[in-house]
Amino acid sequence: MRTTVGIIGAGPAGLLLARLLRRAGVDCVVLEARDREYVERRQRAALLEQGAVDVLRACGAADRLDREGVRHDGFELRHRGRRHRFGVAALTGGRANTLYPQTEIVKDLIALVTADGTPLLFDSPVTAVEGLDGDRPVLRYTRDGGEETLECSYVAGCDGSFGAARRALLATGAARLHERGYPYAWLGVFADAPPASDELILSGHERGFALHSMRSPEVSRHYLQVPAGTAPEDWPDDRIWAELDARLAVPGSPLHHGPVTAKSVIPLRGQVVEPMRYGRLLLAGDAAHLVPPTGAKGLNLAFADVVTMARGLAHRRRTGSTALLDRYSELCLRRVWQVQEFSHAMTLLLHAAPDTDAATDAYEHRLRTARLDRLTAPTAAAAEFAENYAGLPMDAPLI
Amino acid sequence: MRTTVGIIGAGPAGLLLARLLRRAGVDCVVLEARDREYVERRQRAALLEQGAVDVLRACGAADRLDREGVRHDGFELRHRGRRHRFGVAALTGGRANTLYPQTEIVKDLIALVTADGTPLLFDSPVTAVEGLDGDRPVLRYTRDGGEETLECSYVAGCDGSFGAARRALLATGAARLHERGYPYAWLGVFADAPPASDELILSGHERGFALHSMRSPEVSRHYLQVPAGTAPEDWPDDRIWAELDARLAVPGSPLHHGPVTAKSVIPLRGQVVEPMRYGRLLLAGDAAHLVPPTGAKGLNLAFADVVTMARGLAHRRRTGSTALLDRYSELCLRRVWQVQEFSHAMTLLLHAAPDTDAATDAYEHRLRTARLDRLTAPTAAAAEFAENYAGLPMDAPLI
Repeated sequence: MRTTVGIIGAGPAGLLLARLLRRAGVDCVVLEARDREYVERRQRAALLEQGAVDVLRACGAADRLDREGVRHDGFELRHRGRRHRFGVAALTGGRANTLYPQTEIVKDLIALVTADGTPLLFDSPVTAVEGLDGDRPVLRYTRDGGEETLECSYVAGCDGSFGAARRALLATGAARLHERGYPYAWLGVFADAPPASDELILSGHERGFALHSMRSPEVSRHYLQVPAGTAPEDWPDDRIWAELDARLAVPGSPLHHGPVTAKSVIPLRGQVVEPMRYGRLLLAGDAAHLVPPTGAKGLNLAFADVVTMARGLAHRRRTGSTALLDRYSELCLRRVWQVQEFSHAMTLLLHAAPDTDAATDAYEHRLRTARLDRLTAPTAAAAEFAENYAGLPMDAPLI
Repeated sequence: MRTTVGIIGAGPAGLLLARLLRRAGVDCVVLEARDREYVERRQRAALLEQGAVDVLRACGAADRLDREGVRHDGFELRHRGRRHRFGVAALTGGRANTLYPQTEIVKDLIALVTADGTPLLFDSPVTAVEGLDGDRPVLRYTRDGGEETLECSYVAGCDGSFGAARRALLATGAARLHERGYPYAWLGVFADAPPASDELILSGHERGFALHSMRSPEVSRHYLQVPAGTAPEDWPDDRIWAELDARLAVPGSPLHHGPVTAKSVIPLRGQVVEPMRYGRLLLAGDAAHLVPPTGAKGLNLAFADVVTMARGLAHRRRTGSTALLDRYSELCLRRVWQVQEFSHAMTLLLHAAPDTDAATDAYEHRLRTARLDRLTAPTAAAAEFAENYAGLPMDAPLI
């Protein structure tokens, strides 16, 4: 099989790319390792930046998002034992995030890509990316027990941090994986309990970070900073609720308790592959980078990559020039490091650094408190935070 | 001897306090351990915030400052091998810092305090602060070989981080010293070489922080990040210039080399005594806190303490109420931690963290670079930096 762009991975990045390319008249084929049901059920949070919503709208993929997504004009910061509303939209001239689960984005995009007639092959794991030094790279993949090949002009690696695309790019020796760990993790909890608020509630408590979110009027979603290496079994329900109350509850504004239905430990780490391109292989999304989840930037960053890649490929189709495509990595990495820095700073702001002595902990907590104090006042610091939280422009040159 | 306010220390904080109290009709006596010549020669940099200049003007202590001080409307940031002018005044509605050596501030204030007729006793080291649980604390000091006492209503501890006042306050057990070290120091260098610029030049180079400043048209002043524990002897002239060139020079804008006339190693640390008051003993300036020198906030923070203390004491004299004085520590500490946080963040932004592996160093450098990229663009981040660099309001409630 042959195509112009071989897309590895039918997550949100690969699917959005397929949709954008179709509308630009660029042929593509999507290869996905797992089956459709698995892909449509892969649970991920999704707080879509204004720019991500705009992109989905612009390519006709936001009908259900516009009906069912919940716009969040701000969030609540619990700080010094008080409730503080952080007005993101008010500070950014009306930009805001929208809560809409990633599973639903994926379902919507699969339906559209399928209706477009774009070949979308499930159960087709890519086993090798070959010919990267030439003009026609080849994807080898298996399907129905046999080996197949897809010859393309470009390969878009949208298959995550453990996928074949990143592996192939790093194997060239021409790229480097930058990486950073954090000495804590998140415990993610689903509970059958009504959310305590319509908006997210964040806390940078002395005991550690906590985040209250929601999936439906009956299901609340919580995240708790926990020591790296902790096991979900270490956290029985009553311990979870006690810790959530300690970090999030303020007098008169309790959390609603209920049965915990699922819990898992989520590591925090930052990764960047640099450059994000080798020859005709271009990485996007998690294949190129991971950000710590504080700030909920992963999906948005993936969309920004895809927008940049689609523009480059569309420009090549229209003009024959690869000038834009050739700048792909440079253009993306500017944004990637900006977002990595924001996610990192927000992580440090809201998490208690463990494993140090009590005196250092107290000092660091006071620095964090001072910073949070600035965010709860009408300062340039609050404006800067809001600008990054709502999201940098997706399709403009950064800085 | 008796007075209303016994001031320990004739540095800028104690002297400004004496001047402010005199104008508010509050009696005071200043006790200084060293002789006048020593105090007037104690070399310290001084980049006065707009608010500090305003305070000196308001109390008639800025005549020479207004003639000889050099207003800096911005500074130069050398970043990614390019020169970037950071316009502080342009970003803050006209607020700016003024370069005027601390020695000169001290000389000006000594002349004024002396002319005011305020007792200013040099060679009078305080040996004990007593009676802190009563209404009339007593300062014991030596003078001309004999022991003397000063009975006061209030004691203002302006005698630095090793002084009797901090020691006495901590000895009550009612306060705590918060402290943080940094894994690097500064090498401070005077050179007989014309400054390369009219404004400060800062660099957050991958090799480490560097700062180019000036004392006169013939004397330049430099600071270099060096490993903690380094000795000045490890830095012969040619090593100093090579390192300054590597971190600061850009093509077409060289530094001017010249004989190094003095060099010393300056530790970086943060300290905060909390609370800053016990009974009728109130600390101000270095006695209460130290900030890392990045951002040049030490003297300005001392002035802000003194303004708050003078207002409290003046309010008590006018109204008989101690309501303002009772809030002294709380009002000061809000500002102290804000400034501590800014100084800390600016330090981390511009210094290379040593002693980690090369991969982590590269990652951290990219985060710092992303942050610096934001400061070199017209962003809210730049506005926030400028607001803090020019200085938070000295006499308004913070946040």
